[in-house]
Amino acid sequence: MSTGTTTQTQAEVEITELLSARAAAMRSGDAALLSAQYTPDAVVFSLAPPLQQPLGPNEEGLRGWFATFDSAVDYEISQPGITVAGDLAFCHSLNRLTAVPKGGSESFTLWFRYSLGLQRVDGTWRIAHEHQSVPFAMDGSFAALLDLEP
Amino acid sequence: MSTGTTTQTQAEVEITELLSARAAAMRSGDAALLSAQYTPDAVVFSLAPPLQQPLGPNEEGLRGWFATFDSAVDYEISQPGITVAGDLAFCHSLNRLTAVPKGGSESFTLWFRYSLGLQRVDGTWRIAHEHQSVPFAMDGSFAALLDLEP
Repeated sequence: MSTGTTTQTQAEVEITELLSARAAAMRSGDAALLSAQYTPDAVVFSLAPPLQQPLGPNEEGLRGWFATFDSAVDYEISQPGITVAGDLAFCHSLNRLTAVPKGGSESFTLWFRYSLGLQRVDGTWRIAHEHQSVPFAMDGSFAALLDLEP
Repeated sequence: MSTGTTTQTQAEVEITELLSARAAAMRSGDAALLSAQYTPDAVVFSLAPPLQQPLGPNEEGLRGWFATFDSAVDYEISQPGITVAGDLAFCHSLNRLTAVPKGGSESFTLWFRYSLGLQRVDGTWRIAHEHQSVPFAMDGSFAALLDLEP
Protein backbone atom coordinates (compact mmCIF):
# COMPACT_ATOMS: atom_id res chain seq x y z
CA MET A 1 0.00 0.00 0.00
CA SER A 2 1.61 3.24 -1.09
CA THR A 3 1.06 6.28 1.07
CA GLY A 4 2.20 8.53 -1.71
CA THR A 5 5.41 10.24 -0.60
CA THR A 6 8.75 9.75 -2.30
CA THR A 7 10.42 8.59 0.91
CA GLN A 8 7.86 5.88 1.50
CA THR A 9 7.96 4.70 -2.09
CA GLN A 10 11.72 4.33 -1.67
CA ALA A 11 11.10 2.33 1.54
CA GLU A 12 8.67 0.08 -0.30
CA VAL A 13 11.32 -0.56 -2.94
CA GLU A 14 13.80 -1.48 -0.21
CA ILE A 15 11.35 -3.87 1.45
CA THR A 16 10.50 -5.45 -1.90
CA GLU A 17 14.24 -6.00 -2.35
CA LEU A 18 14.41 -7.61 1.11
CA LEU A 19 11.60 -10.00 0.12
CA SER A 20 13.32 -10.81 -3.19
CA ALA A 21 16.62 -11.45 -1.42
CA ARG A 22 14.79 -13.68 1.07
CA ALA A 23 13.12 -15.77 -1.65
CA ALA A 24 16.45 -16.05 -3.52
CA ALA A 25 18.23 -17.17 -0.32
CA MET A 26 15.53 -19.81 0.25
CA ARG A 27 16.14 -21.10 -3.28
CA SER A 28 19.92 -21.15 -2.85
CA GLY A 29 19.80 -22.52 0.72
CA ASP A 30 21.62 -19.50 2.15
CA ALA A 31 20.88 -19.83 5.88
CA ALA A 32 23.39 -17.09 6.75
CA LEU A 33 21.65 -14.47 4.60
CA LEU A 34 18.20 -15.48 5.85
CA SER A 35 19.38 -15.21 9.47
CA ALA A 36 21.06 -11.85 8.93
CA GLN A 37 17.70 -10.32 7.96
CA TYR A 38 16.33 -10.63 11.51
CA THR A 39 16.78 -8.25 14.44
CA PRO A 40 18.63 -9.79 17.41
CA ASP A 41 15.37 -10.10 19.39
CA ALA A 42 12.98 -11.01 16.56
CA VAL A 43 9.75 -12.75 17.62
CA VAL A 44 9.06 -15.67 15.25
CA PHE A 45 5.86 -17.74 14.97
CA SER A 46 6.76 -20.50 12.51
CA LEU A 47 4.91 -23.37 10.80
CA ALA A 48 6.43 -25.81 13.32
CA PRO A 49 6.01 -25.85 17.10
CA PRO A 50 6.45 -24.42 19.69
CA LEU A 51 3.99 -21.49 19.64
CA GLN A 52 6.94 -19.09 19.60
CA GLN A 53 10.56 -19.75 18.60
CA PRO A 54 13.48 -18.65 20.79
CA LEU A 55 14.09 -14.93 20.20
CA GLY A 56 16.29 -13.82 17.32
CA PRO A 57 17.82 -15.47 14.25
CA ASN A 58 18.49 -19.22 14.19
CA GLU A 59 20.99 -19.97 11.43
CA GLU A 60 21.67 -23.49 12.67
CA GLY A 61 17.96 -24.29 12.74
CA LEU A 62 17.64 -23.08 9.15
CA ARG A 63 20.58 -25.27 8.08
CA GLY A 64 18.90 -28.24 9.74
CA TRP A 65 15.65 -27.40 7.97
CA PHE A 66 17.31 -27.27 4.54
CA ALA A 67 18.82 -30.69 5.33
CA THR A 68 15.31 -32.19 5.54
CA PHE A 69 15.00 -31.88 1.75
CA ASP A 70 16.49 -33.91 -1.08
CA SER A 71 16.12 -31.01 -3.50
CA ALA A 72 16.68 -27.32 -3.61
CA VAL A 73 13.71 -25.40 -2.21
CA ASP A 74 11.60 -23.46 -4.66
CA TYR A 75 10.11 -20.42 -2.94
CA GLU A 76 7.75 -17.66 -4.00
CA ILE A 77 6.47 -14.64 -2.04
CA SER A 78 3.17 -13.85 -3.76
CA GLN A 79 0.88 -10.82 -3.60
CA PRO A 80 2.95 -8.91 -1.00
CA GLY A 81 1.09 -6.00 0.59
CA ILE A 82 3.54 -3.53 2.17
CA THR A 83 2.54 -0.69 4.49
CA VAL A 84 5.28 1.74 5.59
CA ALA A 85 5.64 4.76 7.87
CA GLY A 86 9.09 6.11 8.59
CA ASP A 87 11.30 3.31 9.89
CA LEU A 88 8.45 0.86 10.51
CA ALA A 89 6.52 -1.41 8.15
CA PHE A 90 4.32 -4.44 8.06
CA CYS A 91 3.83 -6.81 5.18
CA HIS A 92 1.57 -9.75 4.35
CA SER A 93 1.77 -12.26 1.54
CA LEU A 94 0.88 -15.78 0.48
CA ASN A 95 4.05 -17.82 0.03
CA ARG A 96 4.71 -21.02 -1.90
CA LEU A 97 7.26 -23.66 -0.95
CA THR A 98 8.02 -26.57 -3.28
CA ALA A 99 10.60 -29.24 -2.43
CA VAL A 100 11.33 -32.98 -2.31
CA PRO A 101 11.41 -34.27 1.28
CA LYS A 102 14.44 -36.32 2.36
CA GLY A 103 13.96 -39.88 1.17
CA GLY A 104 10.91 -38.88 -0.88
CA SER A 105 10.45 -39.42 -4.58
CA GLU A 106 8.15 -36.51 -5.35
CA SER A 107 8.00 -32.84 -4.52
CA PHE A 108 5.23 -31.32 -2.44
CA THR A 109 3.91 -27.78 -2.74
CA LEU A 110 2.72 -25.83 0.29
CA TRP A 111 1.01 -22.45 0.22
CA PHE A 112 1.03 -20.59 3.54
CA ARG A 113 0.24 -17.18 5.03
CA TYR A 114 3.19 -14.88 5.80
CA SER A 115 3.26 -11.71 7.90
CA LEU A 116 6.26 -9.54 8.73
CA GLY A 117 6.86 -6.64 11.10
CA LEU A 118 9.88 -4.68 9.88
CA GLN A 119 12.12 -2.01 11.37
CA ARG A 120 14.80 0.06 9.63
CA VAL A 121 17.91 -0.16 11.83
CA ASP A 122 20.95 1.94 10.84
CA GLY A 123 19.48 2.33 7.37
CA THR A 124 18.77 -1.38 6.79
CA TRP A 125 15.34 -3.04 7.01
CA ARG A 126 15.25 -5.97 9.44
CA ILE A 127 12.57 -8.50 10.37
CA ALA A 128 11.45 -7.84 13.97
CA HIS A 129 8.45 -10.16 13.74
CA GLU A 130 7.60 -13.07 11.44
CA HIS A 131 4.42 -15.19 11.42
CA GLN A 132 3.95 -18.17 9.08
CA SER A 133 0.94 -20.47 9.11
CA VAL A 134 -1.75 -22.51 7.44
CA PRO A 135 -5.34 -22.61 8.75
CA PHE A 136 -6.84 -25.82 10.14
CA ALA A 137 -10.01 -27.75 9.36
CA MET A 138 -13.05 -26.91 11.48
CA ASP A 139 -14.74 -30.25 10.63
CA GLY A 140 -13.60 -31.97 13.82
CA SER A 141 -10.44 -33.43 12.24
CA PHE A 142 -8.30 -30.40 13.25
CA ALA A 143 -6.03 -31.23 10.32
CA ALA A 144 -3.63 -28.53 9.16
CA LEU A 145 -4.78 -27.52 5.67
CA LEU A 146 -1.72 -28.07 3.48
CA ASP A 147 -3.40 -28.20 0.08
CA LEU A 148 -5.04 -24.78 -0.09
CA GLU A 149 -4.15 -22.41 -2.94
CA PRO A 150 -4.63 -18.65 -3.32
CA MET B 1 8.43 -2.12 22.71
CA SER B 2 8.78 1.50 23.71
CA THR B 3 10.84 3.76 21.52
CA GLY B 4 11.01 6.38 24.19
CA THR B 5 9.14 9.47 23.00
CA THR B 6 5.98 10.79 24.64
CA THR B 7 3.99 10.58 21.42
CA GLN B 8 4.82 6.93 20.91
CA THR B 9 4.09 6.03 24.51
CA GLN B 10 0.68 7.64 24.04
CA ALA B 11 0.20 5.55 20.89
CA GLU B 12 1.14 2.42 22.80
CA VAL B 13 -1.46 3.28 25.44
CA GLU B 14 -4.07 3.69 22.70
CA ILE B 15 -3.18 0.34 21.11
CA THR B 16 -3.23 -1.38 24.50
CA GLU B 17 -6.74 0.06 24.93
CA LEU B 18 -7.72 -1.31 21.51
CA LEU B 19 -6.51 -4.77 22.57
CA SER B 20 -8.39 -4.53 25.90
CA ALA B 21 -11.56 -3.45 24.11
CA ARG B 22 -11.13 -6.33 21.69
CA ALA B 23 -10.75 -8.93 24.46
CA ALA B 24 -13.76 -7.45 26.31
CA ALA B 25 -15.86 -7.57 23.14
CA MET B 26 -14.90 -11.22 22.65
CA ARG B 27 -16.06 -11.95 26.19
CA SER B 28 -19.34 -10.07 25.73
CA GLY B 29 -19.95 -11.39 22.21
CA ASP B 30 -20.00 -7.90 20.68
CA ALA B 31 -19.54 -8.64 16.96
CA ALA B 32 -20.31 -5.02 16.01
CA LEU B 33 -17.47 -3.61 18.12
CA LEU B 34 -15.02 -6.27 16.92
CA SER B 35 -15.93 -5.51 13.29
CA ALA B 36 -15.65 -1.75 13.74
CA GLN B 37 -11.98 -2.14 14.69
CA TYR B 38 -10.97 -3.17 11.15
CA THR B 39 -10.16 -0.95 8.17
CA PRO B 40 -12.57 -1.40 5.23
CA ASP B 41 -9.91 -3.35 3.28
CA ALA B 42 -8.31 -5.30 6.13
CA VAL B 43 -6.42 -8.47 5.15
CA VAL B 44 -7.30 -11.28 7.59
CA PHE B 45 -5.60 -14.68 7.93
CA SER B 46 -7.78 -16.54 10.44
CA LEU B 47 -7.64 -19.92 12.22
CA ALA B 48 -10.19 -21.31 9.76
CA PRO B 49 -9.86 -21.63 5.98
CA PRO B 50 -9.55 -20.25 3.35
CA LEU B 51 -5.93 -18.97 3.36
CA GLN B 52 -7.25 -15.40 3.33
CA GLN B 53 -10.69 -14.10 4.31
CA PRO B 54 -12.66 -11.71 2.08
CA LEU B 55 -11.29 -8.18 2.57
CA GLY B 56 -12.60 -6.07 5.42
CA PRO B 57 -14.74 -6.63 8.50
CA ASN B 58 -17.22 -9.52 8.64
CA GLU B 59 -19.72 -8.84 11.42
CA GLU B 60 -22.13 -11.54 10.24
CA GLY B 61 -19.34 -14.11 10.21
CA LEU B 62 -18.43 -13.16 13.79
CA ARG B 63 -22.07 -13.51 14.89
CA GLY B 64 -22.15 -16.96 13.32
CA TRP B 65 -18.90 -17.86 15.07
CA PHE B 66 -20.25 -16.82 18.50
CA ALA B 67 -23.30 -19.01 17.78
CA THR B 68 -21.04 -22.10 17.61
CA PHE B 69 -20.59 -21.90 21.40
CA ASP B 70 -22.89 -22.85 24.27
CA SER B 71 -21.09 -20.48 26.64
CA ALA B 72 -19.67 -17.01 26.64
CA VAL B 73 -16.15 -16.90 25.22
CA ASP B 74 -13.34 -16.25 27.65
CA TYR B 75 -10.52 -14.44 25.87
CA GLU B 76 -7.08 -13.23 26.89
CA ILE B 77 -4.45 -11.34 24.87
CA SER B 78 -1.21 -12.31 26.58
CA GLN B 79 2.30 -10.87 26.38
CA PRO B 80 1.49 -8.22 23.73
CA GLY B 81 4.55 -6.71 22.07
CA ILE B 82 3.70 -3.37 20.43
CA THR B 83 5.99 -1.47 18.05
CA VAL B 84 4.86 1.98 16.88
CA ALA B 85 6.08 4.70 14.53
CA GLY B 86 3.80 7.63 13.75
CA ASP B 87 0.46 6.31 12.51
CA LEU B 88 1.66 2.73 11.97
CA ALA B 89 2.17 -0.15 14.38
CA PHE B 90 2.52 -3.88 14.55
CA CYS B 91 1.75 -6.10 17.50
CA HIS B 92 2.22 -9.77 18.40
CA SER B 93 0.78 -11.76 21.26
CA LEU B 94 -0.25 -15.23 22.40
CA ASN B 95 -4.01 -15.36 22.86
CA ARG B 96 -6.18 -17.74 24.86
CA LEU B 97 -9.73 -18.72 23.95
CA THR B 98 -11.85 -20.79 26.35
CA ALA B 99 -15.44 -21.80 25.54
CA VAL B 100 -17.96 -24.64 25.49
CA PRO B 101 -18.72 -25.79 21.93
CA LYS B 102 -22.38 -26.03 20.86
CA GLY B 103 -23.76 -29.30 22.15
CA GLY B 104 -20.63 -29.96 24.19
CA SER B 105 -20.49 -30.57 27.91
CA GLU B 106 -17.00 -29.23 28.63
CA SER B 107 -15.03 -26.16 27.73
CA PHE B 108 -11.87 -26.31 25.63
CA THR B 109 -8.94 -23.93 25.87
CA LEU B 110 -6.94 -22.93 22.81
CA TRP B 111 -3.73 -20.88 22.80
CA PHE B 112 -2.83 -19.35 19.44
CA ARG B 113 -0.43 -16.85 17.91
CA TYR B 114 -1.81 -13.39 17.06
CA SER B 115 -0.25 -10.67 14.88
CA LEU B 116 -1.74 -7.29 13.98
CA GLY B 117 -0.78 -4.55 11.54
CA LEU B 118 -2.38 -1.30 12.71
CA GLN B 119 -2.97 2.11 11.14
CA ARG B 120 -4.21 5.30 12.80
CA VAL B 121 -7.00 6.63 10.60
CA ASP B 122 -8.56 10.02 11.51
CA GLY B 123 -7.08 9.68 15.00
CA THR B 124 -8.34 6.14 15.65
CA TRP B 125 -6.25 2.97 15.49
CA ARG B 126 -7.66 0.34 13.14
CA ILE B 127 -6.65 -3.21 12.28
CA ALA B 128 -5.37 -3.30 8.69
CA HIS B 129 -3.97 -6.82 8.97
CA GLU B 130 -4.71 -9.70 11.35
CA HIS B 131 -3.06 -13.14 11.43
CA GLN B 132 -4.15 -15.90 13.84
CA SER B 133 -2.72 -19.42 13.88
CA VAL B 134 -1.45 -22.50 15.61
CA PRO B 135 1.59 -24.43 14.32
CA PHE B 136 1.24 -27.98 13.01
CA ALA B 137 3.00 -31.25 13.86
CA MET B 138 6.02 -32.13 11.73
CA ASP B 139 5.76 -35.84 12.66
CA GLY B 140 3.88 -36.81 9.50
CA SER B 141 0.44 -36.42 11.09
CA PHE B 142 0.14 -32.74 10.01
CA ALA B 143 -2.21 -32.24 12.94
CA ALA B 144 -2.91 -28.68 14.02
CA LEU B 145 -1.39 -28.32 17.51
CA LEU B 146 -4.28 -27.19 19.68
CA ASP B 147 -2.88 -28.08 23.10
CA LEU B 148 0.27 -25.95 23.21
CA GLU B 149 0.74 -23.41 26.00
CA PRO B 150 3.07 -20.42 26.31
